[in-house]
Amino acid sequence: MTTRKRNGEAPPVEQVAGNGLLHRRALLGRGIMLAGAAATGAGTSSTSAAAEPLKEDPWSLTMGSISLPRQVPSRFENHVVRTLSNPNHEFRNSHGRTPHHLLHGTITPAALHFTICHSGLPDIDPEKHRLVVHGLVKEPKIFSLEDLARYPMVTRPCFLECGGNSAPMFSKEPLQVNAQAIHGLVSNSEWTGVLLSTLLEETGIDPKAKWFLAEGADSLALHRSVPVKKGLDDAMIALYQNGERIMPGNGYPMRLLLPGYQGNMNIKHVRRIKLLDQPAMSFYESKTYSQIIPGGKAWLFHFLQEVKSFITQPSFGHSMKGPGTYEVSGVAYSGTGRIARVMVSADGGKSWGQAALQGPVMPQAFTRFRMPWRWDGQPAVLQSRAWDEAGNVQPTRAEFVAVRGEASAPVSPLGFPNQHYNAITSWGIDNNGAIKHVYA
Amino acid sequence: MTTRKRNGEAPPVEQVAGNGLLHRRALLGRGIMLAGAAATGAGTSSTSAAAEPLKEDPWSLTMGSISLPRQVPSRFENHVVRTLSNPNHEFRNSHGRTPHHLLHGTITPAALHFTICHSGLPDIDPEKHRLVVHGLVKEPKIFSLEDLARYPMVTRPCFLECGGNSAPMFSKEPLQVNAQAIHGLVSNSEWTGVLLSTLLEETGIDPKAKWFLAEGADSLALHRSVPVKKGLDDAMIALYQNGERIMPGNGYPMRLLLPGYQGNMNIKHVRRIKLLDQPAMSFYESKTYSQIIPGGKAWLFHFLQEVKSFITQPSFGHSMKGPGTYEVSGVAYSGTGRIARVMVSADGGKSWGQAALQGPVMPQAFTRFRMPWRWDGQPAVLQSRAWDEAGNVQPTRAEFVAVRGEASAPVSPLGFPNQHYNAITSWGIDNNGAIKHVYA
Repeated sequence: MTTRKRNGEAPPVEQVAGNGLLHRRALLGRGIMLAGAAATGAGTSSTSAAAEPLKEDPWSLTMGSISLPRQVPSRFENHVVRTLSNPNHEFRNSHGRTPHHLLHGTITPAALHFTICHSGLPDIDPEKHRLVVHGLVKEPKIFSLEDLARYPMVTRPCFLECGGNSAPMFSKEPLQVNAQAIHGLVSNSEWTGVLLSTLLEETGIDPKAKWFLAEGADSLALHRSVPVKKGLDDAMIALYQNGERIMPGNGYPMRLLLPGYQGNMNIKHVRRIKLLDQPAMSFYESKTYSQIIPGGKAWLFHFLQEVKSFITQPSFGHSMKGPGTYEVSGVAYSGTGRIARVMVSADGGKSWGQAALQGPVMPQAFTRFRMPWRWDGQPAVLQSRAWDEAGNVQPTRAEFVAVRGEASAPVSPLGFPNQHYNAITSWGIDNNGAIKHVYA
Repeated sequence: MTTRKRNGEAPPVEQVAGNGLLHRRALLGRGIMLAGAAATGAGTSSTSAAAEPLKEDPWSLTMGSISLPRQVPSRFENHVVRTLSNPNHEFRNSHGRTPHHLLHGTITPAALHFTICHSGLPDIDPEKHRLVVHGLVKEPKIFSLEDLARYPMVTRPCFLECGGNSAPMFSKEPLQVNAQAIHGLVSNSEWTGVLLSTLLEETGIDPKAKWFLAEGADSLALHRSVPVKKGLDDAMIALYQNGERIMPGNGYPMRLLLPGYQGNMNIKHVRRIKLLDQPAMSFYESKTYSQIIPGGKAWLFHFLQEVKSFITQPSFGHSMKGPGTYEVSGVAYSGTGRIARVMVSADGGKSWGQAALQGPVMPQAFTRFRMPWRWDGQPAVLQSRAWDEAGNVQPTRAEFVAVRGEASAPVSPLGFPNQHYNAITSWGIDNNGAIKHVYA
C-alpha cells in the first residue's frame, strides 16, 4: 500500500492565469491527489462480491429514523439557514438572506430564498384571493386562482434581486462578513405561471395605456409602476416556485415576476394590475428606488439589475485546507439576458482566466461558473468578473466608485439609500489559509 | 360594465385533434374568457395612481406573521405532502411518494422528492463519513466530504425513478387513485457533485475491471453492481440536491447518481465503490430487479428507465369546473436521453395533437408538456404519449400487456415483482367533470 501523499506535491499542470489558475482540462489524467490511500481490504484484486462494511459507523448498525411527509435536512445542516434582520418580529420590515456560501448548483431552495417583508407574511386564503386587471383596458377582469390554473402556463428559471443587495459594499472599509451578509438578497428559482400578456389578451388594452400599477395584498399594499411593454414582453403571474406553490414570503398565492427587474417591483401577493397612461409615482419608485448619484441627480425608473457575479467557494467563512488544488466557483447573472463569459483572477485582477459556465445558460438566471486552482499556500486575492450577452461588463470596484461615488451615507439595515452595487467582490487569502473580505 | 360571460361560449378556434385539442397559438388574440368582469372602480379611464384596496380582505388589514430561518409553505398547502407507506415506522421499508397532481414545472422540491428507505434514515455525521474507491484500481483512495469539495463539480437536472414505480398499473382493473399513488416514485432534482470518472482518474483502473459494486452506509448496506462504462460516462457522486445538501432520505451526505438507471442502483449514503471483473450478484440485482417476463425468462441487468409520460393536470383528484378551455399538462422523461415529442389525445387515443415542450429539454430530466384543450362537457379520455431522441416510444397499454403479460401477482405495497411499467396512463372525464382512472 502507499503512504498518504501530501497536498501540493502534484506535478505542474497548464496554467491559464497567474497565481495557479488552471485550464479545466489540465487536470484530466494527472490526478489531483487530495484523497488518502485506502487502508482496508481495498486494493486487492479480489472479485468477491461480499460487501463487508469498511468500518462500523454507528449509523450503519441500527435502524434509522422515520420518513416524514415533508423531508427535512439532516441535523448536521442546521446552520444552513437564512439570517434574519428582524428576528423578534418588531413592527418594521424583515430581511431573510440566502446562505450562498453553503449552497451549490443554480437553484436556491425555496426554503432559503431571500425575502423582504414590509408588514409580515400575510395569511392569504387562496380560494378567496383575486387578481383584478383594470384601468385602461377594454374589459376589466377578475381572476381567481382556479381561473388562472386553466390558462396556458410557462416555466422558467429566474433570479430575483433586491435593488439594495450588496449594500454592505458601499462601506468605506471592507466589512468582514460572508457572501450571505453581502449578497444574500438575490436568489434563483424555477417559476411557473401565466404570462401577463395572456391576461392582457383577455382584457384588451386601451392604446393610451403606457404603464401599469401592480399592487400586493399585504397590509402595506406595496405597489409599483411598470411599463406596459415589459408586461407584454416576459412578465408572468407566477403561481409555483421550484415546483410547489410559492412560499408566503415570496408572494403566495401569486406574484408578479418581471425577469431582470429589481426585486421590489415583482409585486408579491399581487391583487391588482391597473393600466395607466403614466407612472403612479408611488413611494418605492419616487423615493426609495431612485438612486441618488454624484452631482445630486437621481436614477428614476432604473429597473434592471446589472450584470454581476461573486465567488461562493471559497469565500469568507471558509478556510483553505492546505496548499493544493481547489475549485473556485460562484454564480453570475444579468437582468439584461444571458451570461456570456466569466473571468476569474487569483492575483487581485492582474491576470484572468476564463471560467467554465454550467449549461444550459438561461437568460436572467443564475449561471454557475467554475475554475480549477492550485493554491501554493501564499497570499492570493480571488475575484470574478462577468459579461452578459449584450456586452455589458461587471465593473471593477474602482470603476464603480468613479461613477457612483464613495458611500454618502451609513449603511442602514435596509441598505438605503445606496442601491445597485454590481462591482467585483474580492476574497483575500493569507498564508494560513484564512479568508477575508478585501477591496482590491 | 359587462355581464359575466358563461364558460364555453368562446368562439371556435383551430383544433389539432379530436374532442377539443387546440393549437397553442389558436388562443392568442381571441380570449379564453374564464374570468369574471371586474366589479370595482375598474374599467374607468381614470389614470389616478391612488391604490385603494379593492376589498378589505382580513390579511390586508394586519401585520402578518414572522419570517423564519427556513421558510415553510402556507398552511393552506398542508395537503401538499408525500404519502407514506410506513407511517408508524415499523421494522420494514418505507415509501414516500411525490404529489405530482399538486406540483407544476419540472423541479421536485427536495422536501417532496420520493424516498424508499429500507432501514430508516441513517443519522450520518458528514465529517466522519468516507467514500473508498478500491478493488481493481491502481491505487485505492479514501475521500472525505472535504476532499470531494475541492474536485471539479458539475450540475445537472436528473430524474430518479424506482423500477417499481407505477406498479399499480399492473392491476387488472384500473385502481381509482391519483398520480401520486400511481407514479409517485419518480422525482426530478438539480444535482451537483463530482463525476465518478474524476475519482477514477485518481485511483486508476485495472484493465480487468468491468463492473463496480456501490455500497451504502445505511444499516442494510444496500449494494448494486454497475458497469464501469456507466461509471466513466456520466455517473456522479452527488453532494447537493436543488442547491442544498442532499436530504437524508435521498442519500445524505453523498449518493451515487446514475442518470437514467433505476433508482435502487443510485446508491444512497455511498461509502464504497469497488471495481470488479464481474457483477456481484447482490440481492437487489439477482432477485428483486430481475423482472420476470412471460415464458419464465427474466430481465437481468435491465437498468434503464424507459421513455414515459403522464398527465398531472387535470388528473384523478381534480374535477373539471364546467365546459371551456383548460391546459392539459404533465411530465415526460426517458432514461435514454432527451424527450423528442409528446402527443396528447382527448378521445382515448383515436386522434393525437402535439404538445408544446418546455425548454430547454435536458437529457434524463423531466420535460413539462402542455396542450390547450376546450372541453365541451361531454365524456373524454385524456392520454399522453412520449418519444425520446433515440426513437423509443412509450407503448400503449395494449402493446405493453402484449409483451409483458397481464399482472401475474397481486400488487404488493412494494409493487414487486412487477417492475418497469411505462405505458400510457388514461384519465376518463364524465359529463359531470369527475375524473377517473381508466384503461383505454
